[in-house]
Amino acid sequence: MNNFQFYAPTKVVFGRGTEEQVGALVREFGGTRALVHYGGGSAVKSGLLARVLASLDAAGVSHVELGGVVPNPRLGKVREGIALCRAEGVDFLLAVGGGSVIDSCKAIGYGMKYDGDVWDLYERKATPTASMPMGCVLTLAATGSEMSDSSVITNEDGWKKRGLSSDLSRQRFAVLNPELTFTLPAWQTASGATDILSHTQERYFSNGTDVEPTDSIAEGLMRSVIEMARRAVRDPEDYEARAAILWAGSLSHNDLTGCGRGSGGRAGDWACHQLEHELSGMFDVTHGAGLAALWGAWSRYVVDAAPSRFARFARNVMGVAEADDRKAALAGIAAYEDFLREIGMPVTIGELGVTLSDEQIQTLAWKCSFEGRRTIGSFRVLDRADMEEIYRRAR
Amino acid sequence: MNNFQFYAPTKVVFGRGTEEQVGALVREFGGTRALVHYGGGSAVKSGLLARVLASLDAAGVSHVELGGVVPNPRLGKVREGIALCRAEGVDFLLAVGGGSVIDSCKAIGYGMKYDGDVWDLYERKATPTASMPMGCVLTLAATGSEMSDSSVITNEDGWKKRGLSSDLSRQRFAVLNPELTFTLPAWQTASGATDILSHTQERYFSNGTDVEPTDSIAEGLMRSVIEMARRAVRDPEDYEARAAILWAGSLSHNDLTGCGRGSGGRAGDWACHQLEHELSGMFDVTHGAGLAALWGAWSRYVVDAAPSRFARFARNVMGVAEADDRKAALAGIAAYEDFLREIGMPVTIGELGVTLSDEQIQTLAWKCSFEGRRTIGSFRVLDRADMEEIYRRAR
Repeated sequence: MNNFQFYAPTKVVFGRGTEEQVGALVREFGGTRALVHYGGGSAVKSGLLARVLASLDAAGVSHVELGGVVPNPRLGKVREGIALCRAEGVDFLLAVGGGSVIDSCKAIGYGMKYDGDVWDLYERKATPTASMPMGCVLTLAATGSEMSDSSVITNEDGWKKRGLSSDLSRQRFAVLNPELTFTLPAWQTASGATDILSHTQERYFSNGTDVEPTDSIAEGLMRSVIEMARRAVRDPEDYEARAAILWAGSLSHNDLTGCGRGSGGRAGDWACHQLEHELSGMFDVTHGAGLAALWGAWSRYVVDAAPSRFARFARNVMGVAEADDRKAALAGIAAYEDFLREIGMPVTIGELGVTLSDEQIQTLAWKCSFEGRRTIGSFRVLDRADMEEIYRRAR
Repeated sequence: MNNFQFYAPTKVVFGRGTEEQVGALVREFGGTRALVHYGGGSAVKSGLLARVLASLDAAGVSHVELGGVVPNPRLGKVREGIALCRAEGVDFLLAVGGGSVIDSCKAIGYGMKYDGDVWDLYERKATPTASMPMGCVLTLAATGSEMSDSSVITNEDGWKKRGLSSDLSRQRFAVLNPELTFTLPAWQTASGATDILSHTQERYFSNGTDVEPTDSIAEGLMRSVIEMARRAVRDPEDYEARAAILWAGSLSHNDLTGCGRGSGGRAGDWACHQLEHELSGMFDVTHGAGLAALWGAWSRYVVDAAPSRFARFARNVMGVAEADDRKAALAGIAAYEDFLREIGMPVTIGELGVTLSDEQIQTLAWKCSFEGRRTIGSFRVLDRADMEEIYRRAR
């Protein structure tokens, strides 16, 4: 077990009807005037936004609203939010939606406390030193942004997608009501579950070492999400399945499944996430579905770096009974792809509805490698040529 | 899954040499003058105390020291600490030791912010409304007090042992260096592991319902601790075993293994802990060893309330292969007792070195039932007569 820090200060308020506590929670964490940030019309149509505003009113928290956040949230909306919050004297940011809305709030928080352009921070031209207090009401189990320290923003100018991680962006509270996820279509449900599984896989496939008890927790979470994703896709109003996926989503990205792996900094591999970020930056595909489309090609490309690790995944998560490590590893990869197909996910980029040209593959790898200046991954380190090959095999 | 809150704001700094960061951590959380609270001579002899003081000095944090905390920490020492801290203008409490020292600090924190006698709070005559900021350097994996909201204090006047739980007592940080636990004798190591396992068992055996993914996490943690306790008892300097037990100790009592169980308030059964608190209050036995001595009798007394729950424990934690639930349950209980014997723990009160008279059993049950005014447990609710019977069967 390597040295690590674990810091998950977000107060989780989980269960039926918990959105009615949001006004009191904003108050508890010092907010008196809140930005209520949301996405499209679903939070309005479902009545959730009205319930949230009523809760804020009841707690004496005044508010301004800003909707229109889109998946793969845009820098333009972030800049609009910063200007609005400054003009309106907002002292608390409240996200009502999924990971995109939370990420947009995180970027607004940084931007409000930074004198220059907020994109500087995502481009690593400056380091954030402060942010705003914020909390969220989650409507989609996927990104884990409600307990993570990270956010991802897309700059429309060049469609660059960049992530930024800092404890400054931790949510003060996260309201998680599984019923709010009942209306998610099967595609969104499955994409979310795939993203959740990927957050654990990115950490789990980080080196060849067993790390107890972190591995036990990771494997338990993966087994739960696989079982419950099957149920939630079949029956969207299966409360227990929705609850398990929602809670697993938070635990899969608050770094609980990373403790003790890797040495220093962010533990994990993250190659699939980085390859996918370029894909959804270029084609605006759903993040989880993009991960599903890449995972098999990535796995088979890297498996020989440590077949025993994939064999452990195969046996402890996918229920593969096979003594030989390499055979078990490959059977586990195939079994996971079968699961993805079962919940309606693509296992190739073609199945995503995207036909990649050779030139586009070169462009994706060029961007993902920061114009050839970085490698990605740690399970197996991947350079630009490797990235091209994985995109090609996933085609 | 029932509604729940999860709040674990403690920053965990884990690994080799991390005690050297303690001065910077106290500073990070606003401390300028610290109480350094510790137990017997081992923190002095090992050089740990000197390293901690040097780290405080280097960070410009002044300090006063108060040692002498004993296992089952005493109210007298708490009162001494409150008086000292008030006289010395202390603004941060730093525990260097095990759960007893942390619990003593928690009580000092409450007492410093309360006008009356601190024991009022433990007797439920008043509710704490504030405490002091505090952190810890842990030297013993057991109580989980470093991430829990609870503390237990013994009043020498009548040897009453009482617990108090409140988010006000959360540690700001916990420094966990597995090497600091190398010198623990096998008895303390095994007692600590038993306590850790009990913190998960008390939650796991709380009702008849499966709660995914909480159950998966709980089972993974229990399997890890059982495996690693065997290793640490055999080889006290097995770093991986010490690290796994230390981290599992925190995760087993920060309520991660309780999420979604029970309805409202503190999820779990806690009967074994409450029966043991009276035992160690009367005889000053090691808490974990007391739990080991009671567990088998408690388990067999309550198993028929939900044999399927014990059967799941037997299959998923103890590796029992048996189709019939009740047979599997009993086999699991026996297998767990075998494990306890293997690491040198008692499985009866007699093996603890205590010979209980009938009169003493009546007194224990009388105290544990708050003079007949409360029941304990939720897996099966136990009244005073049940408590007597369990003490008798454990004799």
